[in-house]
Order: sequence, then C-alpha cells, then structure tokens
Amino acid sequence: MDYNEIALKKHAEWRGKLSVESKAPITNRDELSVAYTPGVAAPCLEISKDESLAYTYTGKGNTVAVITDGSAVLGLGDIGPSAGMPVMEGKCALFKTFANIDAVPICVNSKDPDVIVNTVFHISKSFGGINLEDIGAPRCFEIERRLIEKCDIPVFHDDQHGTAIITAAAILNALKVTGKKPGGLRIAFSGAGAAGISIAKMFLRFGFGDIILCGSKGTIYEGAPYNNPEQEAMARVTNKDNLEGSLADAMKGADIFIGVSRPGVVTQDMIRSMAKDPIVFPMANPVPEIMPELAREAGAAVVGTGRSDFANQVNNVIAFPGIFRGALDCRATKITEEMKEAAARAIAAVIPEEELRADYVLPDGFNPLVVERVAAAVKEAWKKYGA
Amino acid sequence: MDYNEIALKKHAEWRGKLSVESKAPITNRDELSVAYTPGVAAPCLEISKDESLAYTYTGKGNTVAVITDGSAVLGLGDIGPSAGMPVMEGKCALFKTFANIDAVPICVNSKDPDVIVNTVFHISKSFGGINLEDIGAPRCFEIERRLIEKCDIPVFHDDQHGTAIITAAAILNALKVTGKKPGGLRIAFSGAGAAGISIAKMFLRFGFGDIILCGSKGTIYEGAPYNNPEQEAMARVTNKDNLEGSLADAMKGADIFIGVSRPGVVTQDMIRSMAKDPIVFPMANPVPEIMPELAREAGAAVVGTGRSDFANQVNNVIAFPGIFRGALDCRATKITEEMKEAAARAIAAVIPEEELRADYVLPDGFNPLVVERVAAAVKEAWKKYGA
Repeated sequence: MDYNEIALKKHAEWRGKLSVESKAPITNRDELSVAYTPGVAAPCLEISKDESLAYTYTGKGNTVAVITDGSAVLGLGDIGPSAGMPVMEGKCALFKTFANIDAVPICVNSKDPDVIVNTVFHISKSFGGINLEDIGAPRCFEIERRLIEKCDIPVFHDDQHGTAIITAAAILNALKVTGKKPGGLRIAFSGAGAAGISIAKMFLRFGFGDIILCGSKGTIYEGAPYNNPEQEAMARVTNKDNLEGSLADAMKGADIFIGVSRPGVVTQDMIRSMAKDPIVFPMANPVPEIMPELAREAGAAVVGTGRSDFANQVNNVIAFPGIFRGALDCRATKITEEMKEAAARAIAAVIPEEELRADYVLPDGFNPLVVERVAAAVKEAWKKYGA
Repeated sequence: MDYNEIALKKHAEWRGKLSVESKAPITNRDELSVAYTPGVAAPCLEISKDESLAYTYTGKGNTVAVITDGSAVLGLGDIGPSAGMPVMEGKCALFKTFANIDAVPICVNSKDPDVIVNTVFHISKSFGGINLEDIGAPRCFEIERRLIEKCDIPVFHDDQHGTAIITAAAILNALKVTGKKPGGLRIAFSGAGAAGISIAKMFLRFGFGDIILCGSKGTIYEGAPYNNPEQEAMARVTNKDNLEGSLADAMKGADIFIGVSRPGVVTQDMIRSMAKDPIVFPMANPVPEIMPELAREAGAAVVGTGRSDFANQVNNVIAFPGIFRGALDCRATKITEEMKEAAARAIAAVIPEEELRADYVLPDGFNPLVVERVAAAVKEAWKKYGA
C-alpha cells in the first residue's frame, strides 16, 4: 500500500486530525450560564483558593501538550514547526485513541533551548503533562532536563525514553526465548545519539551486561576524540575493556545488537560473528541496519525492527499512552526511573511466558491490555518510590 | 436558579469541559500508518516546501488559541492562570458550539507583557488565530498591539473589541427605535478602562456623536491630572467642550449612556437629566450601573445590560464566533477596523427593521443567522479592504 499517497489524500480531507469538542451542552441560556458566565465563576474561585482543585474542575488532569520545535521530525530532519504539525496531531490522535488522553499539539517557533524551555514552562499550568517530541539531539537532553526541574508536572521526551522502555521490554522477553541470562551479556549498539544513549541507560538499569556504543566514527571509549560530553559520560559506564574499533569489532561475540543508526550498516558476516543465538534489533527507519530475513538467515535467533510490516515492532504506541495514563491518574509530578522500569516490565509481561516465541517478544500496541497494565505499573511505581 | 452551585457540581462531573477527539480512525496498523508513521511524512514534506499548505494538511485553519494570564478573570480580578482555566475552557466550548472552531485554552504563567508576548508568539505557528481573554488593562493594550505586529495570524482581545462591536450594533438599532439620528448625539460613558475606551473608539468610527468618558475621578478631558496615556489620547478626540465634572454632569442632556464600570453608580435622577428618550446601556456585571426597571421608570427608551435575564443582552457570543469564523475562512492575517465595523453592522441587521423594538435591539446569540452573517460580513470586509 502506498501510504504516502493515501496519507496526503486523507490529510487533505481531514484538514487536521483533531477536533476539540465541548463536553458541556450549550443549547440554551441556562446551560450557557452553567458552563460560562455567571456560573463558571464558582469553580474559578475554588481553584484560586486551592490550586490543586484544577484537577477537579478543569481538564488539567487528563490533558497533555505534545511539543516539538520541528527540528528532528521522523527521519526528515529539521523541517520546522509548521511542517512538524501533522506528526504532532498524529501523536495527539494516538493519545486519545490508546489512552483516552486529551492532547494538544504545539510547535515552538524557535530552536533556541532557552526559548523552548521558557515557552513550555510558561504554558505548563494548562496541562497535566508535557510530551516532548522530535526535538534534535543534543538540545533535547538539556531541554528535557531543565523542564523537569522547572515544571511541577511530568515532562517526558518520548523519542528517548519510549523507545528505550520498549526495547528493554523486548530484550527481557528475547532473553527468555533464547535462554540467555542477563548479567554477563555483551551488547553492541550502532548509534550513540539520543536514542542510543537512552536505550543504553535503560539497559544499564536492567543490568543486561556490558554495552559497547558505536557512533559513525567507531566505538565510544573513554577519551575517544570524537566523543561529545554525553558520549564521554557513557564511556565511563560502558565498554569495560575500552575497546577501540569499528562496529564490526564491537559486534564480534556480542549477544545482542541494537541499531538506532542508518540503513544497511550491518552485514550478514557481522551477524555471523556474534555469539550463538544472537538477539538483533536493527531499528533504523524506514530501512533497518540489516533486513530481518538476512539477519535470521545469518543466525539471528530473535529479530525486531521499527517497522509494522515485520514481527516484533518497537512501536512507541506500546509505551507512551500507558505511561502518561498512569502518571496522570496518580498526579505524578515526574516520570521517574522506577516508573520507566516498571513500564518496561509490564510491557514484557503482557505476553504470557508460554506464548513467547522468537517472532513474538513484544505485544501489539492495539492490545488493550498494554495500556491498562503499563498505566497500573507506572502508578504503583510512583506510589511506592515517589519522585 | 443558583448557577454557582450547579456550575460547581457540573464542573466536577465534567473534569474539564473540552475533549480532544481524533478525526482520523486508528483501529488497525494500516490506519495507524496513514495517520501516523510512515504515511504522515508525506504531508510534513509538502508543508516543509510550502508553509501555506499547513492550512490544507493540518487543523491550523480551524484552530484558535484562547489565551489568558488570569489577571482580569470575569469580575474576579487577578486570580492567576490556573483559576482562569474554567473560563478559558468555557470560551473554547463556545467557539465549538457557535462556530465549529477548535479552540485550545492556554493560561500563561506570568503577568510580564514581554513574557506573554514572547510565549504567545512562539506557539503561534500552531494556530490560525489568537483570542486574548481576561488580561488586565493597561497591559492588554500593549500585549495585543505587539502580538498583532509579530504574528502572521489574527490576534483579537475579545474583552475590548467584542463588547465594542456588539454595543455599536445595539446602538445602531436603538437609534432606529428611538428615531435619533447619528452625528450630533451626546454620549456619556461610565468607565474609561479597556472596555470603555474600546467602545468609544468604535463609536467614533461610527460617528454617533460627541463622547464624554468618565473614570472614577470624573470626566476625561485634556490634561486631567488622573488621565493615563490612553485616556489622554482619548481626551483629544472626545469631550469637545472639554467638560470637567462628574458622571452626573456628563449625563445631563446626553442621548446615550454606556456603563462599563461599577454597580449602582447611576441614579434615576441622572437618567431623568438626560435628553428625551435616552438609550441606556448599564453593562457592569453582575450588577448594572442602574437596574433596567429603574432606568425605564425614569424615562429610558431602550435599555440593555450584560445580563442574560434582561432584554438586550450585550453577550460576547454574539460577536467573536462569527468574527473568528470569517477571519479563519478567508485566512485573514489581522482583524481590521473594517472587519469590526462590518461585524457590528451585520449583527444589527440580523433583526429585520419591522421587528425592532425597545426590548429587541440585539439578536439572540443562539440565533444561527448571527454567526453566519457576521462571518460573511467579516470575510467580505477582509477581501475588500485587506490588512
């Protein structure tokens, strides 16, 4: 199916994928007087006395802002705020469809981190959560960190953490399928940007094993001349043997490959050089680091990609709807590491152990159990560990 | 009916008066691939090549941001951004109900005009129009002026212009009812703040006659020691005889009284001192400058207020839905003076001349002709006169 052609046609029909509807009937003067003046003064006054009543008398507790600067939209790069809007509207449509959350798309007309942070902070009282989307690295790290500090509501950069949580869930199940034990595994990454670093951090939390990150210039080791500050920090907690070399070197003997980089950078020989029954997740979009059939032919035991037309799709709809649903429902002020870990474990556990197979290590995002279980796990983690 | 009690109960039930719905069905992977990745890349790319296609492929052309800083909410004053939210949600509900416009409530967490201007400007690409609401004077003047200069979409402070447009429409019809002729009339105002000045400017455009604005300290004349800069500017184009005195002095012999001030400041004797068949619009809320029955008893020929329980309600729902509907439909980049005048004339003309009566000089906001006619008039004025 040519999605591009259909998508253009449907987008022109929709003229926007969102509709803001009134839940309050306003068909006569009495109803107008309840939803608007003079009646509306009553909830206003209550909130002015106790700001937490905004969760009772307004939509704050079910509303998320989906915010971009249009600088890293899909694989299209820096196409600007207006051109990023169809993706943000789509994300909002997913929020409603999967988690019944009211989401508002907002594109910030600046790429200056100070401007983005201040703009988002100054509108944050209107929302119960902030989903940052498609903001380029390394600015996305600083923007998220500063907003988490300033705002009293959860701020979550889905491109970083969503993918990390789902990939961790996939690995949890892939280990069971392959009989591999977490702890002493060796894990090679192609891609040392926002997504790669975020996944690596999540893997460290789960203690899967030793990670070797590879950027386009080679492995990330302490003191590598091409390291940026984030990579240098990662080098201190990964790549125990300080391996200097290429991606091919990093993959030799590795149990797991994680690709968040570019199409076709992995060959069948590189897969063959890995440990027995390797777990291979080439997630570059739309063309993976190696096509799944080639990976399997070369011995990969479990393969997952970012694509919906292959098994084991690492699709963000598996994580963010439940994470925000849970965070909103318990009025969490942050998305903590414990909540992310709980989300990953909940996603993995949606598939009963007896149903796990090499081509079924991740649940379908359309399975309603996913959002339900993730939300419950996130809530429980917030209540147990707090901020 | 105790609207306060009902409003509190209903607001707690609604938990927000708005719902953001997806117009795009997302029930399976194919639909997901059209509304979101990979299909969504196609409209993104088109917009990146031609930004005006945002009106085709996103909701920009039907979406308005309703923005406040919570500093002048209803008659409640500066209750802050969170407490202003029920009113903003209500306004958004009215946008949908009356004009099928998708409106998003946003409260800015600052009262600094620089911050408000920058925040709104930096999110403005996501919207087709900006409705400023309940922002205190005199900051509202500066904020609106600077945003109109910076933004390429209409920016409209409804509290100023909406009331002015509807009041002008009411006067147009009241003149017909009373047989008074515009031009040489004398018009006394109680209230020389944002609303008063905005109504006075509209009246000047219509050439109704000589206006005398009165603030709490007396008439606004050139060089009055209590004038603020806006008032001093108004003094130069109003109050021809430079009358120094009280509201009672200003009302002597006046044909029209406009009240946008405080309850009870007008007495029956003051009405009796006016010219024959005076037109009296005491619009203070919730208690008018003089109650309608007292004004009529003292000789007022036409009386209107801001209240829904009396005849001739100056209700903002009569103007803003049609104004924004029209401005969005023709992709106006501004709301010009010609568009405002056209809106006022269209509102007045909704009532056929033969149906005009003293207690029916303004149409009901629920009359669907209102938004239709106002939108058409606003579009025509934009096309004829442009920016």
